[in-house]
Amino acid sequence: MVLIKEEDIKVPLDVPQEARETYIKNYMEITRETGRLMLFAGDQKVEHLNDDFFGEDIPSDDNDPEHLFKIAANSNIGVFATQMGLIARYGMDYPDVPYLVKVNSKSHLIKTEQDDPFSNQWYDMHQVAQFRDNSGLKILGIGYTIYLGSEYEAEMLHQAAQLIYTAHKYGMITVLWIYPRGKAVGNEKDPHLIAGATGVGACLNSDFVKVNYPKAEGMKSEDAFKEAVLAAGRTKVVCAGGSSDDPEAFLKKLYAQIHVSGAEGNATGRNIHQRSLDEAIRLCNAIYAITIEDAPVEDALKIYKGE
Amino acid sequence: MVLIKEEDIKVPLDVPQEARETYIKNYMEITRETGRLMLFAGDQKVEHLNDDFFGEDIPSDDNDPEHLFKIAANSNIGVFATQMGLIARYGMDYPDVPYLVKVNSKSHLIKTEQDDPFSNQWYDMHQVAQFRDNSGLKILGIGYTIYLGSEYEAEMLHQAAQLIYTAHKYGMITVLWIYPRGKAVGNEKDPHLIAGATGVGACLNSDFVKVNYPKAEGMKSEDAFKEAVLAAGRTKVVCAGGSSDDPEAFLKKLYAQIHVSGAEGNATGRNIHQRSLDEAIRLCNAIYAITIEDAPVEDALKIYKGE
Amino acid sequence: MVLIKEEDIKVPLDVPQEARETYIKNYMEITRETGRLMLFAGDQKVEHLNDDFFGEDIPSDDNDPEHLFKIAANSNIGVFATQMGLIARYGMDYPDVPYLVKVNSKSHLIKTEQDDPFSNQWYDMHQVAQFRDNSGLKILGIGYTIYLGSEYEAEMLHQAAQLIYTAHKYGMITVLWIYPRGKAVGNEKDPHLIAGATGVGACLNSDFVKVNYPKAEGMKSEDAFKEAVLAAGRTKVVCAGGSSDDPEAFLKKLYAQIHVSGAEGNATGRNIHQRSLDEAIRLCNAIYAITIEDAPVEDALKIYKGE
Amino acid sequence: MVLIKEEDIKVPLDVPQEARETYIKNYMEITRETGRLMLFAGDQKVEHLNDDFFGEDIPSDDNDPEHLFKIAANSNIGVFATQMGLIARYGMDYPDVPYLVKVNSKSHLIKTEQDDPFSNQWYDMHQVAQFRDNSGLKILGIGYTIYLGSEYEAEMLHQAAQLIYTAHKYGMITVLWIYPRGKAVGNEKDPHLIAGATGVGACLNSDFVKVNYPKAEGMKSEDAFKEAVLAAGRTKVVCAGGSSDDPEAFLKKLYAQIHVSGAEGNATGRNIHQRSLDEAIRLCNAIYAITIEDAPVEDALKIYKGE
Amino acid sequence: MVLIKEEDIKVPLDVPQEARETYIKNYMEITRETGRLMLFAGDQKVEHLNDDFFGEDIPSDDNDPEHLFKIAANSNIGVFATQMGLIARYGMDYPDVPYLVKVNSKSHLIKTEQDDPFSNQWYDMHQVAQFRDNSGLKILGIGYTIYLGSEYEAEMLHQAAQLIYTAHKYGMITVLWIYPRGKAVGNEKDPHLIAGATGVGACLNSDFVKVNYPKAEGMKSEDAFKEAVLAAGRTKVVCAGGSSDDPEAFLKKLYAQIHVSGAEGNATGRNIHQRSLDEAIRLCNAIYAITIEDAPVEDALKIYKGE
Repeated sequence: MVLIKEEDIKVPLDVPQEARETYIKNYMEITRETGRLMLFAGDQKVEHLNDDFFGEDIPSDDNDPEHLFKIAANSNIGVFATQMGLIARYGMDYPDVPYLVKVNSKSHLIKTEQDDPFSNQWYDMHQVAQFRDNSGLKILGIGYTIYLGSEYEAEMLHQAAQLIYTAHKYGMITVLWIYPRGKAVGNEKDPHLIAGATGVGACLNSDFVKVNYPKAEGMKSEDAFKEAVLAAGRTKVVCAGGSSDDPEAFLKKLYAQIHVSGAEGNATGRNIHQRSLDEAIRLCNAIYAITIEDAPVEDALKIYKGE
Repeated sequence: MVLIKEEDIKVPLDVPQEARETYIKNYMEITRETGRLMLFAGDQKVEHLNDDFFGEDIPSDDNDPEHLFKIAANSNIGVFATQMGLIARYGMDYPDVPYLVKVNSKSHLIKTEQDDPFSNQWYDMHQVAQFRDNSGLKILGIGYTIYLGSEYEAEMLHQAAQLIYTAHKYGMITVLWIYPRGKAVGNEKDPHLIAGATGVGACLNSDFVKVNYPKAEGMKSEDAFKEAVLAAGRTKVVCAGGSSDDPEAFLKKLYAQIHVSGAEGNATGRNIHQRSLDEAIRLCNAIYAITIEDAPVEDALKIYKGE
Repeated sequence: MVLIKEEDIKVPLDVPQEARETYIKNYMEITRETGRLMLFAGDQKVEHLNDDFFGEDIPSDDNDPEHLFKIAANSNIGVFATQMGLIARYGMDYPDVPYLVKVNSKSHLIKTEQDDPFSNQWYDMHQVAQFRDNSGLKILGIGYTIYLGSEYEAEMLHQAAQLIYTAHKYGMITVLWIYPRGKAVGNEKDPHLIAGATGVGACLNSDFVKVNYPKAEGMKSEDAFKEAVLAAGRTKVVCAGGSSDDPEAFLKKLYAQIHVSGAEGNATGRNIHQRSLDEAIRLCNAIYAITIEDAPVEDALKIYKGE
Repeated sequence: MVLIKEEDIKVPLDVPQEARETYIKNYMEITRETGRLMLFAGDQKVEHLNDDFFGEDIPSDDNDPEHLFKIAANSNIGVFATQMGLIARYGMDYPDVPYLVKVNSKSHLIKTEQDDPFSNQWYDMHQVAQFRDNSGLKILGIGYTIYLGSEYEAEMLHQAAQLIYTAHKYGMITVLWIYPRGKAVGNEKDPHLIAGATGVGACLNSDFVKVNYPKAEGMKSEDAFKEAVLAAGRTKVVCAGGSSDDPEAFLKKLYAQIHVSGAEGNATGRNIHQRSLDEAIRLCNAIYAITIEDAPVEDALKIYKGE
Repeated sequence: MVLIKEEDIKVPLDVPQEARETYIKNYMEITRETGRLMLFAGDQKVEHLNDDFFGEDIPSDDNDPEHLFKIAANSNIGVFATQMGLIARYGMDYPDVPYLVKVNSKSHLIKTEQDDPFSNQWYDMHQVAQFRDNSGLKILGIGYTIYLGSEYEAEMLHQAAQLIYTAHKYGMITVLWIYPRGKAVGNEKDPHLIAGATGVGACLNSDFVKVNYPKAEGMKSEDAFKEAVLAAGRTKVVCAGGSSDDPEAFLKKLYAQIHVSGAEGNATGRNIHQRSLDEAIRLCNAIYAITIEDAPVEDALKIYKGE
């Protein structure tokens, strides 16, 4: 576990003087003073409706939104990302959780064949900052999804640019989810395309950008992923381990992303919350150990297994 | 009849300090201090044009908009929901009715085959709050309809998020009507899809969400409905008993929704107002007895029958 | 001729306290203290371009826009409705005419086969009120057209709601023209559909709503029209006598609309201005006699004939 | 040459009291105290890209935008209409030219078969007025093009109404270019349709409206044009002489427009600037002589020929 | 190398008095007091995603965004153009670089066959100016791309007009990239069409306009390009040397653009940054020598070769 120092943080220059201290404080807190991000993603209740929360292989606990908050409150995480509505409903009982407001969301009902994806902003940054101040919660940052290559790309790039610029004025940290998607996009997991996505995240001035893990023919994903990590420059890249169910494989993949590809964290959702509370907490802590504490896979596995 | 205490109300955290008292007062009044909602819905004059108010099996009284106000004023209800225009025209003669302003509405002339549904906001929340203050009426909350899965979903999610955020700033209660509808939607009454809808209502921070009653193969609706009630978390779920004409069947269904599925109320329109004033009042009171007073079906039926 | 009293006017509750007096004054003036509206419609220069003003059977006078003002100034009318531009150009010479600003207009060049109709707002209400104050003219109200069932219905409902809410803040009277039109609309003159239209006018809080006169199979129009008049509740319904050229038939129809159907006035344009000035004035006065002075058809005909 | 008096100007009533003097001053200046408009149109660098400025039959001078300013500065004109950008670049060297800012423009690359025409507003009126004040130039008015019958008509009518209303608040003169165009428009030069266009200009409250010169079967254009001039009422109608290259024919046509049809000026562009500076100036002066000084064609021809 | 004097700068008249000094200072700095522009273009991370930065023939350095800043900081350039995000991330380490914020950008994923191009504005000018002031960086101007002939041309013309007008209010210099593109555009490199594009840049009041180098049948490009340079009048025209890889051919082309066609600079991106740092710096300096110092090609080649 390598701690960073406040003076080493390259505060982006759109953070005004009066917000620098807040930005640094939020950055230290969201990365647990390591510069790495362990983001627990819980925005799927809109993105996937109830598909991720109720079904044959999903423990019934997960159908209650509070499950997410219980995990967030009892695990080691960097930040818990979800819609402002849920935070407003449960935050009073989970006041110590570090939150990130996902400001746009859409359902998955319309497929690309029918229309290209557009995820619209729900709130402006002034409202998010006002909510932070009124609620007294630890709202450290905001998240926004861009579907690159969608016919609605122009609108999403604009919304993202505006949100990030204004979030930084409030000293808040930003995470972009950037997924190439739409009729114009052939292979969403093409490493070169994903490197394009992380570069867009850098040009938009996001602190972090979350992308899908690339798949390349004749090349290991962790190697192919390097292009994307480098292309992002000082914007840090995180990704999920995929939808793999097996914790060991998942943790190994995560380790490789960080130590081979150079990723600076992860954003994990279903793999965590589609488990019983106890198991979810243990997996969360294992992910945290690798991401934040630089633990080897074996140590993390022990944490997961409760050994 | 179980009364709630003010201190047990989980005031959502986007309600600012200065509006908490108003919110709690409105919440207590709209739920008659029980936490349950008995909403008398009278917004169909736009939604269905005159189809619900004039026709062979509809008493001629119903063609006069005042019929709705007479029912609302003379029955036990939690709140009467309708467009602001009607409230502005009749409110001076029915000052004691608790009102909820339905802020978006559309006609049903365009079918999904022609275009996906979009119901546009008529007023912003500042105007609704100003109307509340200028009129002196008991405007307790606002309602908004979202067609989930419509090609216009993005715009409706944005409008809903904005309205709820601002309504809470004024201490007002919110009710979302969420209906999956559009070319992308197969079965609007699928229980899992309806659970998605209530989850969206929770993420949008609505106090209540009204959905259609699900229909499932090989499963009772009241059991299938549990998924949706749980998925909404602290956002309360209400639904109508359907378009059934038979009061007994209707009341039984309602009872099951509350006592089996866990619904926290109902939103009923046509089943009430497509009756003579006297019968409408009796049915209203019967519904109220089940919803608010925890009466058994038999007692409610007696109320309906005037026994 | 039955005069109403100021204290009998049900001032809609979105009229704020400080505008009540103005509203009542405007209402009394526009209805000539009878509660009925005789609206002389002169907005066709945009709606129908020059088709209504120049042609074989149209006197050449009508090609000069001033013809409309001469009629308005020399006849008995309730209000003269036209675009703000014409009022701004001729009002200085016709300062005593009561005016109503038609705030949206479109040409008829695009047919429904090509695109559904959308009539866009030209000014906001603040500009109309400012024009009223700057010009010193008797601008009593505003008019707006909605094409119900058009694919642009959502935008027009929004504009109408906003205009009416704000017009009432300025104490001004509102008239909606509501016509079902668009690919989704089969029979524009269906009595039940027109009753839907007047109900929408009521929900939008308009003081008056102008619709087309219904046509029903096996039923007299004046009887079929009752549904629409009742469905509008406290919003008053007016309509034209149709495009009939024969004054006697026209006046009889108007009489039936008021005394059989319960309409509270009329909105007449081409039937008036497509005549020489003298004849137009006499017809105007005849219409006024029926509408405002409760004259029988025979008396009105005498006025028309100059007897 | 008939001079008008300030007190004879019918100042439109949307000009507020404090701007009346400016409006009258601008009106007198733009019409050279005659009430007639000689507008030199130089907005084609966007409308037609470089087609009007470079080519086989065009003198090479015309490819330099300054050519337009040299003509404007050295000829008799009422006003020179062009985009604000050019005025901002050359105005310091041509400070005595009376200018009119053309506030919307589009290229001609997209043909009607592909999409109906939409010419978008570049600036709002506050910016134009600010530019007038900051630059100290004689910016007398603004121009705007409407494509009547286009699928974008609704937006252009709205923009035009807003611009004119606000221009008048600043005491500025307005000129509308109204051309029926789009898939719905059959014959753009139909006299009756053009009369519709001028009527729309009147309803929009423009001081001047520029239309194409009509062509009618079995009727002289100057006679057919009367309908349009009359239909505009107090809004004055101007038009170009067409794309005819022959100055004599052009001047005769212009004379007929004014003295037969009743037009109150002209708007001429290519016919002037597609000539060498010297010839352009002489033609300009000839046009001016007919338009402003009521000269007969022969006298104007002499001016053109430098006799 | 010919230096200009401050008093010779024709400050456009939309620059208000209080910003004149800033404008002149920026103009002198961005043109290195020569009136010519050497713009190093680094906005391709969005425009071309990672295609320009990673690949077989591209040195691996180029995949790190900092490569661009190293070149900009260590070469002779007029200004470095890139997205605000990158400037905000690296500016603290490269404080002496003169920057130009490219305010709109899009990816190249959607091809014209699918949809015409639209590049949306990311920030408004107030934000750019605020960023300039907060960051203390030398932000000298802004850039914006217009796709002339696109179905979204109307929106881009509006955004460009607004940005330039407001940039000038802040005393900032503007560069338009204007590319004819879309289904309506046949030959993007047609000299006459490109002259149309530069003329549009002039009408929009841009200080500089960047276009593609024309290709004409039976004519040298440098001769064909003259039309475009002249058509722009006082707006200065720059272009790239094309995608040629050979530095000698590139430098010759550039020399001809300036000394034959009359171009006032160049905008070069890939040809510079797709080289190792050392070579990129040398090429930059060679381009600078021709553009700013009026060096002959041979001298520039020596600089490139490090002789």
